[in-house]
Amino acid sequence: MLREGRLGKSVDAEFARYTSSLAFDRNILEYDILGSMAHALMLGRRGIIQEEEMKRILAGLLKIYRSRSVSLDHALEDVHVAVEARLFEEIGETAGKLHTARSRNDQVALDLRMLARDRINRISRALLALEEVLLKISGENKETPMPGYTHLQRAQPTTLAHHMLAHFWSFARDLERLEDAYRRVNLSPLGACALAGTSFPIDRTEVARLLGFSGIVENSQDAVASRDFLLEPLSALAILAVNLSRLAEELILWSTAEFGFVELSDELSSTSSIMPQKKNPDALEIMRARVARAIGNLTSAFALVKALPLAYNRDLQELSPVALDSFEILEASVSMLSRILSTAEFKHERMRATCEGDFLTATELADYLVREKGLAFRTAHRIVGRLVAGAVKAGISPDKITPEMLDDAALEVIGKPLGLSKEELECCLSLEKSIAGKRSTGAPSPPAVEESISRGEAKLAEFRARLEDRERKVKEAFEALLKEVERLAG
Amino acid sequence: MLREGRLGKSVDAEFARYTSSLAFDRNILEYDILGSMAHALMLGRRGIIQEEEMKRILAGLLKIYRSRSVSLDHALEDVHVAVEARLFEEIGETAGKLHTARSRNDQVALDLRMLARDRINRISRALLALEEVLLKISGENKETPMPGYTHLQRAQPTTLAHHMLAHFWSFARDLERLEDAYRRVNLSPLGACALAGTSFPIDRTEVARLLGFSGIVENSQDAVASRDFLLEPLSALAILAVNLSRLAEELILWSTAEFGFVELSDELSSTSSIMPQKKNPDALEIMRARVARAIGNLTSAFALVKALPLAYNRDLQELSPVALDSFEILEASVSMLSRILSTAEFKHERMRATCEGDFLTATELADYLVREKGLAFRTAHRIVGRLVAGAVKAGISPDKITPEMLDDAALEVIGKPLGLSKEELECCLSLEKSIAGKRSTGAPSPPAVEESISRGEAKLAEFRARLEDRERKVKEAFEALLKEVERLAG
Amino acid sequence: MLREGRLGKSVDAEFARYTSSLAFDRNILEYDILGSMAHALMLGRRGIIQEEEMKRILAGLLKIYRSRSVSLDHALEDVHVAVEARLFEEIGETAGKLHTARSRNDQVALDLRMLARDRINRISRALLALEEVLLKISGENKETPMPGYTHLQRAQPTTLAHHMLAHFWSFARDLERLEDAYRRVNLSPLGACALAGTSFPIDRTEVARLLGFSGIVENSQDAVASRDFLLEPLSALAILAVNLSRLAEELILWSTAEFGFVELSDELSSTSSIMPQKKNPDALEIMRARVARAIGNLTSAFALVKALPLAYNRDLQELSPVALDSFEILEASVSMLSRILSTAEFKHERMRATCEGDFLTATELADYLVREKGLAFRTAHRIVGRLVAGAVKAGISPDKITPEMLDDAALEVIGKPLGLSKEELECCLSLEKSIAGKRSTGAPSPPAVEESISRGEAKLAEFRARLEDRERKVKEAFEALLKEVERLAG
Amino acid sequence: MLREGRLGKSVDAEFARYTSSLAFDRNILEYDILGSMAHALMLGRRGIIQEEEMKRILAGLLKIYRSRSVSLDHALEDVHVAVEARLFEEIGETAGKLHTARSRNDQVALDLRMLARDRINRISRALLALEEVLLKISGENKETPMPGYTHLQRAQPTTLAHHMLAHFWSFARDLERLEDAYRRVNLSPLGACALAGTSFPIDRTEVARLLGFSGIVENSQDAVASRDFLLEPLSALAILAVNLSRLAEELILWSTAEFGFVELSDELSSTSSIMPQKKNPDALEIMRARVARAIGNLTSAFALVKALPLAYNRDLQELSPVALDSFEILEASVSMLSRILSTAEFKHERMRATCEGDFLTATELADYLVREKGLAFRTAHRIVGRLVAGAVKAGISPDKITPEMLDDAALEVIGKPLGLSKEELECCLSLEKSIAGKRSTGAPSPPAVEESISRGEAKLAEFRARLEDRERKVKEAFEALLKEVERLAG
Repeated sequence: MLREGRLGKSVDAEFARYTSSLAFDRNILEYDILGSMAHALMLGRRGIIQEEEMKRILAGLLKIYRSRSVSLDHALEDVHVAVEARLFEEIGETAGKLHTARSRNDQVALDLRMLARDRINRISRALLALEEVLLKISGENKETPMPGYTHLQRAQPTTLAHHMLAHFWSFARDLERLEDAYRRVNLSPLGACALAGTSFPIDRTEVARLLGFSGIVENSQDAVASRDFLLEPLSALAILAVNLSRLAEELILWSTAEFGFVELSDELSSTSSIMPQKKNPDALEIMRARVARAIGNLTSAFALVKALPLAYNRDLQELSPVALDSFEILEASVSMLSRILSTAEFKHERMRATCEGDFLTATELADYLVREKGLAFRTAHRIVGRLVAGAVKAGISPDKITPEMLDDAALEVIGKPLGLSKEELECCLSLEKSIAGKRSTGAPSPPAVEESISRGEAKLAEFRARLEDRERKVKEAFEALLKEVERLAG
Repeated sequence: MLREGRLGKSVDAEFARYTSSLAFDRNILEYDILGSMAHALMLGRRGIIQEEEMKRILAGLLKIYRSRSVSLDHALEDVHVAVEARLFEEIGETAGKLHTARSRNDQVALDLRMLARDRINRISRALLALEEVLLKISGENKETPMPGYTHLQRAQPTTLAHHMLAHFWSFARDLERLEDAYRRVNLSPLGACALAGTSFPIDRTEVARLLGFSGIVENSQDAVASRDFLLEPLSALAILAVNLSRLAEELILWSTAEFGFVELSDELSSTSSIMPQKKNPDALEIMRARVARAIGNLTSAFALVKALPLAYNRDLQELSPVALDSFEILEASVSMLSRILSTAEFKHERMRATCEGDFLTATELADYLVREKGLAFRTAHRIVGRLVAGAVKAGISPDKITPEMLDDAALEVIGKPLGLSKEELECCLSLEKSIAGKRSTGAPSPPAVEESISRGEAKLAEFRARLEDRERKVKEAFEALLKEVERLAG
Repeated sequence: MLREGRLGKSVDAEFARYTSSLAFDRNILEYDILGSMAHALMLGRRGIIQEEEMKRILAGLLKIYRSRSVSLDHALEDVHVAVEARLFEEIGETAGKLHTARSRNDQVALDLRMLARDRINRISRALLALEEVLLKISGENKETPMPGYTHLQRAQPTTLAHHMLAHFWSFARDLERLEDAYRRVNLSPLGACALAGTSFPIDRTEVARLLGFSGIVENSQDAVASRDFLLEPLSALAILAVNLSRLAEELILWSTAEFGFVELSDELSSTSSIMPQKKNPDALEIMRARVARAIGNLTSAFALVKALPLAYNRDLQELSPVALDSFEILEASVSMLSRILSTAEFKHERMRATCEGDFLTATELADYLVREKGLAFRTAHRIVGRLVAGAVKAGISPDKITPEMLDDAALEVIGKPLGLSKEELECCLSLEKSIAGKRSTGAPSPPAVEESISRGEAKLAEFRARLEDRERKVKEAFEALLKEVERLAG
Repeated sequence: MLREGRLGKSVDAEFARYTSSLAFDRNILEYDILGSMAHALMLGRRGIIQEEEMKRILAGLLKIYRSRSVSLDHALEDVHVAVEARLFEEIGETAGKLHTARSRNDQVALDLRMLARDRINRISRALLALEEVLLKISGENKETPMPGYTHLQRAQPTTLAHHMLAHFWSFARDLERLEDAYRRVNLSPLGACALAGTSFPIDRTEVARLLGFSGIVENSQDAVASRDFLLEPLSALAILAVNLSRLAEELILWSTAEFGFVELSDELSSTSSIMPQKKNPDALEIMRARVARAIGNLTSAFALVKALPLAYNRDLQELSPVALDSFEILEASVSMLSRILSTAEFKHERMRATCEGDFLTATELADYLVREKGLAFRTAHRIVGRLVAGAVKAGISPDKITPEMLDDAALEVIGKPLGLSKEELECCLSLEKSIAGKRSTGAPSPPAVEESISRGEAKLAEFRARLEDRERKVKEAFEALLKEVERLAG
């Protein structure tokens, strides 16, 4: 019956299937009903519909909300039509009053903003948990040496704590970006109607307040036509995804027999039936691949919105499942990564041995020559380079280097010996001492890491407080709304 | 039981959910069983398993094939494991023999190639139907003038036939690209096993033949690690998608009140309850948006495969649903566009009026001056430009232009009149005559269009013959395989 | 000489060409020198190098800064090496001291952040100008009716002011996003060195302050390995690009003969030599296409960073030109759009006529029936739909509708007449009255638009103040740094 | 002067800069002149211009062709205008005749097809060279064992030859795709004029022949509006890029100290001044990053063409530099990879040791149990899995496994011993024997590899013959054209 007004003839089945959004719409059903409740309440309070009508509508909506028994089949175009059809079954003609001063254009924008709001919070929560895992591993590994890489070549010694903190601070920016996006998502478009607002004396701010929004989207065409409230979170998620993929890639590398820095837990990897010592990092590979999908989803989203004239175009409907896919990918992946990390066993001995087998402290020796012997940086590098090249060629390990060898290298480069003592040399080339010396802010020495962890904890506490505030506001608004609806629906 | 060998401990539910491919796998279940039948047949024929074992396996597989009753739940990792588990239920321990000289790595590559093969053919069939609609519309509109646009500005008169043929020839290249991709898809990877082939005396060519492939993928690492057999069709589909979107965009524009060149059928558009004269081109908008998704899917696919070392990585699993989404989008969209076009009503009068209201034949007049009066092209353009500018300013329509006006313009530019007769002038500025003059190959004059349609029909006939041949070969192979299996399974 | 230490043998020309970043590096030369000045100053102040060395280095850098005479050819790998080579020519061996406690890894991150900072500010400035143009057009067109579109179908009347404000508020969010990104860009990575910080007693915060940064990037691996400080602005720019493209698309449509809502200025469009009345919106088409490039650049950026292990990888070098391309595209496009809009002539008569020719006020009549006659929304819609359908069929224009016609439609739907007066009917169907009635917040009635403009102006003033503050801080830091360098180099 | 007809007022400098294509156009200057020669020749032969005019035009064009002295500055819009302006300087008013029956729309399509044709051939030539390097390495390493990986975990032994052949066959498909694309690129659009062909009696086929094309693009709107002739090669190049990136990634991994399978040549890598034993695979990292750009370029291209109505839109201009970037990236990268591979030193001992240290031959033992002892595949896997697990736990290497240990494992699983002899066991677990056993088509046994190399050589010979044929046809056409022009310009 609702349809009849909208489609000239009987519905063509293929057309209905091709254009239907119902497969996605179950994800916004709850929001659609809550939005209708707030709208009806406002209509009644402002006298746009009669109090009695309002009460009947609310009673009907409440019943539907509790049962969620809305038929989402292809014959009905979308969730908005489906809910209204259900409401009609419940309360008859009065159902038609609900659509006063409203359009499906502002309704769907509302529902999607409520969805995005919820998903951003859920992903933020998962990210907070991941950050805690990273801080925990860092706290436990302040003195676990491991090689730091550039170009995937071992470059300088660092610690597992310092490495994990690199990811911690990177994810902290992801959290910030989600917060920033949330501010622009958490605004109500309702009251924009089809595109030009309405002549009914509505109160847009009141509806926004009832639904826990922090404000409204000012312009009515903008409110129904814009989707940057999805493009921005999708962008933030793509960055997060890329950050995840970097850690996932490292864990995949570290799980190889060649690196051997980590062993994944049995529950979170698959093994070969024939080589039980081998564990396939399947979840991490899938994570890496889903990151690619988050990138592709972003491309879809941008290509979709590009060059669309205002205001609403049906194209926008296709953006919703794309956005949802990224929301789901990221929530699941962040959560999976927390579990993988918190159950992984890091192979401290192998990490240390890898550092020692190579001349990773060579830079430290060069720095010492600059600092104590007044050599220019480049000169010191040449001398140490010569020394290391000789040692590698002769198969001499770092702890076997003698002051004489260094002097030989110095003679070749600057024509005079340097005269370091055996102690000085050991001190420079020692793994522990080298790391301990890196005391600049954000560097791997245990005290610097300690400070960084403290700052990280403080930062997390702030994030958590703000997230809880956001969650609480939405929750309280919904509870208050439902309570009021229950009261009125009596 | 199968799992036990593969996963060290009991399965973690979140891990299983995160890594499972079963949501996708129902799409390849049929192919997986057929592939197993061909493999078992070959194993038996080559004496790698005993005849009796082969018969039991085939009987079991046939039963599963007929019922399709394979449980695809998350507890089982993928379709290959699920089918084998079902087979175990049917025939007990012998089921274990089926996996001889095979791996899930070559199995999934096989299944995906069979899927891609089928989908390419289905989309090609849909495209052939669309091409026929375009030829039909062209045949009926060889003398329907319409404006040709550049920069979305009316530029020169053409005909609806000529315009539709532009799309026809463009889609013909899409058909060609799908054919080319098919040649590289239609090869069997089976026998590559995990990555290094096998020491069992298998016959890869025999299996390929049994499954209707035209050959095998030579190298065994390449066979399990490469996915260009999906990247290539996805690229071809993205190009097709973009071509579709251009026609969809035109139909959306033409459906506006401003253009008014077409009216979509009621069944395939939605209307406003309040403005019944207005039809929203919803299906076309959704088509335009899904094209964006085909582009995004392509991005996902490329980003996913980028920088993966050989051979198989679990990342590849995530490519399959992305590919399937594009296959489905394109098949449905091509089919929907056929229906929209074949039921649309083109507004001939409006198209003609649009041509006449503007000076679309001005170029023709300039060409005439070049041809008959020996003027340089640029000079002729300046004269006609002056003439048209004056006429537009004075509100004079094309049919009211006189030889004197032209002479005035010529005097200004070259200092002498041109002396065209009234007849000559009318002939140049007449819409029909102008179009009729465009006789170069591929131009809009009715005879040129006629020839183009003939060539198009011949081309379509060839496409159709080749497609039918491809379809027939697969169908016959499957029938023969099933018949042989039935015979052996007794 | 510098090279010798880095590359084992003589440089291979093709390798040098393939890997060189010098084509890009001219864009960061200035920042590289300023960064070196701040670094040298800090090294000297902290006693890491001697005061005399510091002074010589600063004098050399100042000379280079003033002349910008750094040879950027392929023989030298990158700008950092090139500047140091120039410095060596100026001051000899002491040049080697500059690289103490620094690496090209943190240097390039520094330079890119300084570049991004500058570009974000420049684009923000251009956006502010565009916003002013939009407000100006809005202020002048509060009573210029035009059709509002959904699905590119005329839907309801709005005004040019209201339409332009939709874009205004959308771009305001782009400005916000750039501000948010700026906070995360405006941090100094210097002191991270190769990846693990340093044992020299550097002061990272001091360097940050000298260069006008608001703080430092905490973790040293994160500081050299992360590039979200580019991914985030690139994402914000892609959203801005898409927003631009929507307005560009509308202007292209409006420039067609079919819409005829706008005439672009002659200087900013191209015309046909033969149809002077026709103007091609070339700049807008190119803008629309460059938006696609901004999307593609974003894809490149994400695909590039995906799955890179920490810390620095040479891949990152290739991100810089991609980012610069988007920065340049957006700055030029925003600026071009301002000029196009501020010189365009809007065709008020055509816009109004377009509204009146169609029944764009029909929704208003339905709303009136709901409000005054207590009809359900859906019922009112059916009645008005029936009325409009009849009128369109009979060729009756809105101002010719009579109360009797309405009653006929009502009889058919609800079985009784409605009895509206002629005045009531006219009031509903009048364009001016319909628009004037849309008084909800953000709707097109002139008073609502007036308020929205005021809020917009206030918002712009805030943006401007913050932007000027950002620009001033950088400028003052640079001036102070150069002054100090001049004093010491004196 | 040419401009005057096209732009109403004097040119706006910012507009000119924003819309100019001249930065790109130097890449098609040569083709533009050749195209004009062919066009002029045809015009003359068909009597559309007089013989004398044709001769003067050809003489002018020849002079320009020889000197290439065409000013490409922003004041002139594009290369077509620039060439015509130069021609006007040379021969005066007659220059205006050249534009008869032609438009910049078909001209630019022609030039781009000539460019794409040339670039496809150049990249194909570079690919052939890469394929030869791969075959050469394969030929030399048929008996060089190395681990085959799945999930980046060592899985089964293979050989370096077999691994390189995987890439060989993958790149062979890239060559095929370029050939297929070439067929659709190598068609002439000239004669399509602005969009509707012409009333001049031109001969499109003759022009195509003169320029070495294999045919024409049938429909005139399609000829100027379509760009799938760029989208298709860009797609093929993106696939090629992804294939390159996989080999590049492997070489980066293999260059690590952890894998140690390859040492890049000094000329093609960069080293640390301080750790000379470490070589950074810079060129490979840049290659991996440029692959990301090829993906992004593809996204740009698709997003750009999406939803453009026919026929020519200025947007298309922006596609050209994007396409060129990918052409250049791929040609340089393929060539660089050839050099890297042909100068790399593969570390045979390390590869072999890596195979032996792990139980990579365990699968072979399981297969033997299936084959000789009639065990089901899954059962055999369980027994061997048990055996390997015990050995790894006890630190027993493969060559120390005894028949008794196997029997112990068998007893646990199937309750009875297997009774293999020591010889049988050694034979299964031996690296050489295991590889030698893999004789299925495309597997790593030396004879199978030998055959595969032969087939590869035959395939390459065919590719080379076809490429040379394509190159020769274009070259001969150009030579014949220039010769004829010289004769006539006499």
